[in-house]
Formats: sequence, C-alpha cells, structure tokens
Amino acid sequence: MHSIVLLGSGNVAHHLFAVLQPYIIQVYARNAENLKSFSQVKTTTKKNEIADADVYIIAVNDDAIEEVSTLLTSKSGLVVHTSGSVSINAIVTSRKGVFYPLQTFTKGKKLDFKNIPLCIEAQRIEDYELLEKIGGSISNLVRKISTKQRQTLHVAAVFVNNFSNHLFYLAEEICAQDAIEFNLLKPLIEETVAKIQDLSPKKAQTGPAKRNDEKTMHRHLQQLTAENNKKIYQLLSQSIQKTYEEKL
Amino acid sequence: MHSIVLLGSGNVAHHLFAVLQPYIIQVYARNAENLKSFSQVKTTTKKNEIADADVYIIAVNDDAIEEVSTLLTSKSGLVVHTSGSVSINAIVTSRKGVFYPLQTFTKGKKLDFKNIPLCIEAQRIEDYELLEKIGGSISNLVRKISTKQRQTLHVAAVFVNNFSNHLFYLAEEICAQDAIEFNLLKPLIEETVAKIQDLSPKKAQTGPAKRNDEKTMHRHLQQLTAENNKKIYQLLSQSIQKTYEEKL
Repeated sequence: MHSIVLLGSGNVAHHLFAVLQPYIIQVYARNAENLKSFSQVKTTTKKNEIADADVYIIAVNDDAIEEVSTLLTSKSGLVVHTSGSVSINAIVTSRKGVFYPLQTFTKGKKLDFKNIPLCIEAQRIEDYELLEKIGGSISNLVRKISTKQRQTLHVAAVFVNNFSNHLFYLAEEICAQDAIEFNLLKPLIEETVAKIQDLSPKKAQTGPAKRNDEKTMHRHLQQLTAENNKKIYQLLSQSIQKTYEEKL
Repeated sequence: MHSIVLLGSGNVAHHLFAVLQPYIIQVYARNAENLKSFSQVKTTTKKNEIADADVYIIAVNDDAIEEVSTLLTSKSGLVVHTSGSVSINAIVTSRKGVFYPLQTFTKGKKLDFKNIPLCIEAQRIEDYELLEKIGGSISNLVRKISTKQRQTLHVAAVFVNNFSNHLFYLAEEICAQDAIEFNLLKPLIEETVAKIQDLSPKKAQTGPAKRNDEKTMHRHLQQLTAENNKKIYQLLSQSIQKTYEEKL
C-alpha cells in the first residue's frame, strides 16, 4: 500500500481525502484551524515535520503550487499537483506529476469518484504507473493527459460548466422579471444533458437559431430588456447559425 | 372522459399522442404519409372530416397555427395550440387556449411526462379548468402561465437549452483539436446540472471569471484559436464578472 501526504485543506483536498484516506498518512496545511476537519489522520502545520511518503499530493490554489513544492525538495517521493491549468513543470522537485480530477466540487457534497475522470501525467514511466494504480483504485476513468491536453480540457470545462451555469443564472433572472418560478426550467435543463448521452451536441441542437427562424429570434431580442442578455443572445445565435451553415 | 382531436403529425404531436391516447378520437394532418404512425386511432387528411370533440390540440409549426385553427371555426370545442412563443390570439375560434409542454422532444425518445411542466392558458374559466384536468392527468407540473409569461419562458428556454447545448458542442470541438474524448466532460456536465438542484445558479457559480482570475482568463483566451470562441469566452466571462461586481 502506497503512502500519501496531502498538502492543502481546501475543497479539492477534502474531496480527495474522502476517497484516498486509506493511503493518507498525513495532511499538511499552513493554517491549523483548517486542519481540524482532518481529525482522522495526523496533521501538521510545520514544514520540517512533513512525513516521508511515496506520493505528495499538492491540492492548493494554482498560484501556490510552486511554492508548496519547494517544501518537498529534500523528499524522494513523487510530487503531484491537482490543477487543471498549471504545467507539470510548476513543481520544482525532480519526480513530478499531475493528478487532476475533472469535476466541480461543492463543499460538503459527496460525489461518486468512480465516475470522475482522473487526468494523470508524469515524466517517468514508473511514476505514471504509480499514479495510474492509485487513480484506478478510486476512479473508473483514469486517463493519460498531457499538460497541453489538460489545459485544453480546462478551457472546455469553463464552457460546459462555468458558462452553462451562468446561462442558467441569466434564465433565472429573465424568469424572475415575469414572476415565473425557475424550477419550471429544471426538467428542460436535465433533458438537455440527458440528450447528449445518446446524441452528439451537434445533432442534439434545436431552436430558432438552428432553423434560421429570424422572426422568432427578432421577437426574442425585443423581449430581452438587459443589453447584456441581448448581446449574449445574438452572439450565441450567430455561432449556432455558423455551425450549421459551414457544414452545408 | 373528454374527447380530443389532435391536429399535426410532427415531433410534439407524437409525444402528446403517446400520453393523451386514451382521450384522442382522431388525428388530422395534411399529409397521409405522416399519419401512418398514428395507426392506433382514426386519422384523416380531409378538413371536412374532422370529428367533433371537446378539445382540439393544434401541434404544428408556429407559422401554421392560425391557418389550422381556421379549419375549426364551425366547431364548438376548445381549440388550443402547443407553442411556447405564439399568442393565444393566433387561434381564430371563439374558445381558445394554450397547452404548452416545456420540454425538448427528441424523435423516438420516450419521456416521463409527469415531470414535464405544462403551461396552460385559456380565456374562460371553464376552459382553463378543462385544460387543468387533462394536463393534470399526464403531468405533475401544470401551471397557469399567461402568453407574456410563456414567451418569457421560451426565451429563457433558449438560454438553458439551445445555448447550453451549443456550448457543449463548442467544448467538443475544442477537445477534438487536442485529440481529447468529449466523454471526459460528461460527468462535469452532469454535475453542473445536479448542483443546481440544491444551490441557485448564482451560488453554484465557480471559475476564473467568478473569482476575477485575470491570469487564467488571459491564458484561456490565448489557447482558444477560433475567433468565435474567443468572443464567446470574453462576453460570458464579462457577464459573470458583472454579476458578482454589481451585488457587492
């Protein structure tokens, strides 16, 4: 059984801790207060007390990864970070890797890790295999993903998660103006996602922009009062129209 | 038991037929070929053969609703359409209403109607009650929604369905450039939607725009090669930033 030291005490650290607990021998964080929720295991706030382990998982903000990795230069274990956008080379130790769970984590909300893609990367084959082994024990979707691919995935994740969620927010605001409960849109939102289990998003597309229904688009634009919503409606409608024009 | 004549043979007509079949005494459409799939019930292509019924449901393209309603001027039953965006007044008969299922229908894909919001509208109380009764027999989410509210819902539906689905498509294209399987994003997409069951979209928002992480946004923009994707990234990021600035 491999030993892991977890560095960090935020959202991702908590979620990884929940599934990697059997391996974890210690959690390190700068702030003692934040370590209280890791009471099942040894914790430390002292750099010089960081234990020896096979793997060090740095689960901290992107900007702090490099600095935290400098605490581990004397260690012989593999050091990985969990970021979707930071290069593997941000880690300053000689054995380095990435262990990136591609998911949005909500504090206190348990997720089934088996269905969370784990994007792993390492410079040495034996390090890659070690991460594959640990990853495979918690997820069915372990993938070898390069830094460039991971950064691309991270942008794509912004489109499907951050931007979609923002569209849900805008829709909620639009509904609120006419005293309509946002809940009425939830079955549609769920079906939007259910649909792409069987169909590609390209084939699943419907709506006025797809069918070039200028009359409906014009009326929708008149209905939208906020300038920001009009702009978004226009840009995304044009993008949909282009998608289907180009391929004629 | 109320009798229904269904007018139309498209996607919505088929889905309504599947759940309203016990009430349906006849299906009318112009094209005999399209009526073949309604073999369980009487069908006609002849205007003067349209049966007498309590309710006529016009499930045709928005542009054809008015014309189809003219076929029913001699009938005493209630005439409704199923459109999200057409006014109740497009119907020329004296008893008129709307019976709008707020969902995206895929040909051949069965849906649980119980969870589909039915937005109903009528001018007379007894007509409203009739629609409420029929609606309540197939859905748990029957709501009184005015034409104005329905048109607002329709725009909001474009945001959550058409636009989100298009973002999924763009993400798939972005992934394809680096030979990444789009499937890796599906658990994230599912969780994006699962999250708003418990949290409002406003509270569920995460990402570089939300936290004003200019460095990451700048790098994402550099990674995006298509001008169209850059524009969408910028506009939606700005919109997210505005959302959280304004409320400070």
